[in-house]
Amino acid sequence: MGKEITNRDENYSQWYLDIVKKANLAENSAVRGCMVIKPHGFAVWENMRDQLDKMFKETGHVNAYFPLFIPKSFLSKEAEHVEGFAKECAVVTHHRLMNDPHGQGVVVDPDAKLEEELIVRPTSETIIWNTYRDWIKSYRDLPLLINQWANVVRWELRTRPFIRTAEFLWQEGHTAHATRDEAIAETRKMLDVYAQFAEEYMAMPIIKGVKTPNERFAGAEDTYTIEALMQDGKALQAGTSHFLGQNFAKAFDVQFLTENNKLEHVWATSWGVSTRLMGGLIMTHSDDQGLVLPPKLAPYQVVIIPIPKPNDEINTVANDVMMSLRKKGIKVRYDQDKKKRPGFKFAEYEMHGIPVRIGIGKRDLEKNQVEVARRDTKEKTFVPLDGLEDYITNLLDDIQQNLLNRAKAYRDEHITKVDNFDDFKKVLDEKGGFILAHWDGTTETEIKIKELTKATIRCIPLDNKPEDGLCILTGKPSKQRVLFAKAY
Amino acid sequence: MGKEITNRDENYSQWYLDIVKKANLAENSAVRGCMVIKPHGFAVWENMRDQLDKMFKETGHVNAYFPLFIPKSFLSKEAEHVEGFAKECAVVTHHRLMNDPHGQGVVVDPDAKLEEELIVRPTSETIIWNTYRDWIKSYRDLPLLINQWANVVRWELRTRPFIRTAEFLWQEGHTAHATRDEAIAETRKMLDVYAQFAEEYMAMPIIKGVKTPNERFAGAEDTYTIEALMQDGKALQAGTSHFLGQNFAKAFDVQFLTENNKLEHVWATSWGVSTRLMGGLIMTHSDDQGLVLPPKLAPYQVVIIPIPKPNDEINTVANDVMMSLRKKGIKVRYDQDKKKRPGFKFAEYEMHGIPVRIGIGKRDLEKNQVEVARRDTKEKTFVPLDGLEDYITNLLDDIQQNLLNRAKAYRDEHITKVDNFDDFKKVLDEKGGFILAHWDGTTETEIKIKELTKATIRCIPLDNKPEDGLCILTGKPSKQRVLFAKAY
Repeated sequence: MGKEITNRDENYSQWYLDIVKKANLAENSAVRGCMVIKPHGFAVWENMRDQLDKMFKETGHVNAYFPLFIPKSFLSKEAEHVEGFAKECAVVTHHRLMNDPHGQGVVVDPDAKLEEELIVRPTSETIIWNTYRDWIKSYRDLPLLINQWANVVRWELRTRPFIRTAEFLWQEGHTAHATRDEAIAETRKMLDVYAQFAEEYMAMPIIKGVKTPNERFAGAEDTYTIEALMQDGKALQAGTSHFLGQNFAKAFDVQFLTENNKLEHVWATSWGVSTRLMGGLIMTHSDDQGLVLPPKLAPYQVVIIPIPKPNDEINTVANDVMMSLRKKGIKVRYDQDKKKRPGFKFAEYEMHGIPVRIGIGKRDLEKNQVEVARRDTKEKTFVPLDGLEDYITNLLDDIQQNLLNRAKAYRDEHITKVDNFDDFKKVLDEKGGFILAHWDGTTETEIKIKELTKATIRCIPLDNKPEDGLCILTGKPSKQRVLFAKAY
Repeated sequence: MGKEITNRDENYSQWYLDIVKKANLAENSAVRGCMVIKPHGFAVWENMRDQLDKMFKETGHVNAYFPLFIPKSFLSKEAEHVEGFAKECAVVTHHRLMNDPHGQGVVVDPDAKLEEELIVRPTSETIIWNTYRDWIKSYRDLPLLINQWANVVRWELRTRPFIRTAEFLWQEGHTAHATRDEAIAETRKMLDVYAQFAEEYMAMPIIKGVKTPNERFAGAEDTYTIEALMQDGKALQAGTSHFLGQNFAKAFDVQFLTENNKLEHVWATSWGVSTRLMGGLIMTHSDDQGLVLPPKLAPYQVVIIPIPKPNDEINTVANDVMMSLRKKGIKVRYDQDKKKRPGFKFAEYEMHGIPVRIGIGKRDLEKNQVEVARRDTKEKTFVPLDGLEDYITNLLDDIQQNLLNRAKAYRDEHITKVDNFDDFKKVLDEKGGFILAHWDGTTETEIKIKELTKATIRCIPLDNKPEDGLCILTGKPSKQRVLFAKAY
């Protein structure tokens, strides 16, 4: 394999694209902005999806499925919502093709024009709240805690695999509640689920916060977010949870009879994470040799490689090792391919981010040992066969923890407090990362700062302490610091 | 609940719609032909999907994800394929909406017309084989065994929940092979996987066979099918597996270098099952009281109901029972809702098809027993608490087996051998079901029979014995009987 990917220092953006390609995660398709998620990438996404799904179910949610298409008129019913999505949506106008009368393949049949155009869902609040109108009649029908796994389309102009694509896979939770407080509690609860998933499974530290009005989801009263920091010092919005107030209930006339027999509009939340998380995972841990996967999300955690090639003795030991590892719940693969040399395999599994590699050679077996290499630090050790399964179990825990610690250390080193605009620009240019600074609370200032520096307010962190200060741009008084960064 | 659904005898079609609605499986959405799959229905589909996914992976397949959209020109590349799908597809022509200059909400922005229209995938052979061109260079890249779970859209005029909808969920396997024989073996292997799933999990007996040329998938050399029989005597095509020959490899120029260094076109298969299976499941087992679910696919297999309502003693016993059942791997729910009476709950779980109901009442507890009711036969028995978990384990196996036996008995009673056209019409009209009859092998005769009777050739069964006979319509010689039926 050799040096197939660009160094991060050289060109971070190209490094990312190289990893996505060389680790067989995804590739661009023939359709502009739409990617193909390749088997190795999809296997990682499946692990993320399955774990998230488990956590959603443990918090009382059930899955359902709503239509891909949204009637155009539905989008218009919530004023801010349509403003947010109308400019980037795929519109279905016809339902039939016909043979070109001039013999040039097939063309759209003009007689098959739809009465009302359909929008490929960019998000499903409208079609779902239109459905909830029939499902919610009384307080007994609440709360309604539903999630769906789906594909959505937003016609983005500049795309990047996983991070921003026209079509992406995601889950969208849509819940309905009898009271404002309960809906806000749900919004916060799901933010916590996302935060827990990011740290425990992705080993990706995040900062929880609330968005400024300017950065809110179109139609939300409040948008909560988890913000991660990539290795190039840019932030990634990794998941959002929205308190929608009664906006969609009012737009779609969803009312319920309270215990006191009064008609009231329902309170709503929605929350989602997407294949964008894959981008976050890649950019948090990977290095100049390729992908680095946390053990909890790796399609397989251990690969066994015979050195130089499989034979009866090595096969027997490898099978014993596989069995004992599988008993411990470890996912392991034995690569018996005789056509590839060990060195080639080493580089390939390194590129693919497999957390642990076990090399089994004839000489080692004479000493009753194998060679164990960990992907995160690239350390190699000889480990006795006796007790190997416990060693590997601990090693996987250690790798998972080390990845989180490493990412946390990087992130913590890249949170800078800044008190004037010159320092703000300097830190942005020279160091990058998150900046905690005072802001006067106006959208005008927020936009001005973005124009001048490309930095945006990522969030007002939830664990913020009140602190009197002066806005870095306008010098006006401020009660707390907010989190700035350049972002993906 | 009372008598909420139409009797099967009265109006089978309405009975089906009633079950779909009253068992909370699905409902029509605001988008013509697209359904909402409700949580209870989706939970059954998830179980089907997870089991199938496991079986695909056990047979060496991996998952990936390909774009929702297909460039119009791709569809045209395989002549029969475009013929088969062009007339029923959703066409995306624009990528933006704008505010109506006349103030009437939003309208399609005429400046945002796509250069080439995009088709919402009705199936993905074309976009996938266009991708495979870059993935397959040498015999070392083969076989390629990929599956995807996806939504697809076919613009059907007459729809019915699950059975035929404009959008549906499915999986589509797309494999690539070095030889014709290997591709045919794969086609047959996946047919066997479908057959095993249908019988073992859905308890739905099927007949395996091959389609006539007239009923083949658009672009296939051979289409294999599993055909089930519904309770109204109509057949349901439940899954298909296609041997595609080199058609798509040729259309998309996918060639590989053989071991002997020759360039050859790749051999292909594709195979799929969809949410249509839900329709098959419902129509195979359910009765006039509602849905009947086989234990292996039920979202939960046992529901415990306190009689008349929960109290400390009943709660303690219920929790013990739940724990002991869960240890056996049984999915169980305890319904503690105090707002609903036992009779109401009984009817509700019956409607929802939950295989086993355990009633726990004060008097029964004095005798150290509970009441166990099975959904399939509606038998009730008192069972001692001691050893209850073993009783339930066996009971679930028995229900699963009984459902299959019952469906098999019905199906076998409804396979009729017929030797002339009058009998053919008579059996179709009076008895329904499958008819084994001689056919002269021509598409002309097949179409004529369909015009005259609405019956189609479901398949040429794989276990057919050669038998000389005369075509029921034309009297021409025939070498084997084929399987006719009216079908969904």
